[in-house]
Amino acid sequence: MLVVKIGGAAGVNLEAVCADIAALTQQGQQVVLVHGGSDETNRLSERLGHPPRFVTSPSGFTSRYTDRATLEIFAMVTAGKINTLLVEALQAKRVNALGLSGIDGRLIEAKRKEAIRAVENGKVRVLHDDHTGTIQAVNARLLHLLLDAGYVPVVAPLALSPEGVALNVDADRAAAMVAGALHADSLILLTNVPGLLRHFPDEDTLIPRLERAGLEASLSFAEGRMKKKVLGASEALERGVQRVILADGRVSEPVQRALAGQGTVIA
Amino acid sequence: MLVVKIGGAAGVNLEAVCADIAALTQQGQQVVLVHGGSDETNRLSERLGHPPRFVTSPSGFTSRYTDRATLEIFAMVTAGKINTLLVEALQAKRVNALGLSGIDGRLIEAKRKEAIRAVENGKVRVLHDDHTGTIQAVNARLLHLLLDAGYVPVVAPLALSPEGVALNVDADRAAAMVAGALHADSLILLTNVPGLLRHFPDEDTLIPRLERAGLEASLSFAEGRMKKKVLGASEALERGVQRVILADGRVSEPVQRALAGQGTVIA
Repeated sequence: MLVVKIGGAAGVNLEAVCADIAALTQQGQQVVLVHGGSDETNRLSERLGHPPRFVTSPSGFTSRYTDRATLEIFAMVTAGKINTLLVEALQAKRVNALGLSGIDGRLIEAKRKEAIRAVENGKVRVLHDDHTGTIQAVNARLLHLLLDAGYVPVVAPLALSPEGVALNVDADRAAAMVAGALHADSLILLTNVPGLLRHFPDEDTLIPRLERAGLEASLSFAEGRMKKKVLGASEALERGVQRVILADGRVSEPVQRALAGQGTVIA
Repeated sequence: MLVVKIGGAAGVNLEAVCADIAALTQQGQQVVLVHGGSDETNRLSERLGHPPRFVTSPSGFTSRYTDRATLEIFAMVTAGKINTLLVEALQAKRVNALGLSGIDGRLIEAKRKEAIRAVENGKVRVLHDDHTGTIQAVNARLLHLLLDAGYVPVVAPLALSPEGVALNVDADRAAAMVAGALHADSLILLTNVPGLLRHFPDEDTLIPRLERAGLEASLSFAEGRMKKKVLGASEALERGVQRVILADGRVSEPVQRALAGQGTVIA
């Protein structure tokens, strides 16, 4: 069992990822594909006159503020466009892909973040209508139902609160929780660098192997987006995934190269 | 087994439809919900600076011309927004809804319309890059897999060509083909009139019962959108659906009223 996560961002060779998934599923490998879509959501938000808003917490951490309108744009981009086009690309390669968002069949349950504390003009404000969640549970039974029937699930990073409110969730963390729930052998997080770099962006400083004990220390030098992948790796390993591979998505055969050990292998 | 179709358009009481589906599924009824989204696609297309284009055939029939950009907008609206929000609304009522488009798991296979003949400035032009399809097959096995596991499938009107190209399809016809493939007892097509009207829009001229032999004749007075519903009804009955009900979606308990025989019952 293999879980692959790709960003919605530029750089990842989607055609090559789909070709790899076709080759692997033909060999009988069960695969789940998880994707993101933040960058395209930002672009569509701008075009629709509802630009993305980022807030800074009192501790200096920046996050996206997702009001209801932004959530609906996020759903259009991730569940509507990116997910549909990935399923189409896989189907064109005879992979029987099936797209879901985390809302479908309560695939991903998340706790809604009650309030965001944001610093604006030097004052701390509390924002209550954020639609972002922290993942609590994954409906592994639904994924097994589909996988055992021969489908390849393609998952968009939305989730449902216990009360039934749609939320956006981080795609790396979603992939990690999905892999954990399935006890996947491998979780591959594809990105636009060769893996975890000790001195970002110097690609010659790639760390090829990392023990899980060394993960926390690596947070100190992991740059921006890589921090969430490191957190995801840690969550996945805790939940029984055998290895997590942070790998380059820009190359040919990106999934097969990662499985062969290229990138940063964490176990 | 019951298939319900709602438009994406204004008028249908979505909250009441979801409440009815909750009540029916709680009684053990298996339900599939199919929806449209043309009107909202037109609005988003306008906002994105890619206004909808309608073409008129030499025989005077008007249809939407769906280039690739329009198809992607259609996917965002139907599979991304309308489908997600319906699943969310059902989940909030404890219905274990699961959204799919016809692309997912090859749920709906369609033949791509090769060319559209369009009259423009008095001349006939042939347009080749249309992304519209005529439905050929429905993957009933996938729907049964989900229904038997307790999920309520919510279906967006996209389809896949045998070559793996995403296409838009008419939602009424999609509902009819889904109902036919499942040999549903009832297909309910909800609309913003009380049913088939002999003299549209005079609601006092509602036709309460219609034999299938009388369907073709009714095409002569069915107005615009109702024509496609009559065609859908005919297709569904041919494929073994026991009865089709054209009913009012604006009222309270719209699905239960239709099942009780309100609207135009065709059998």
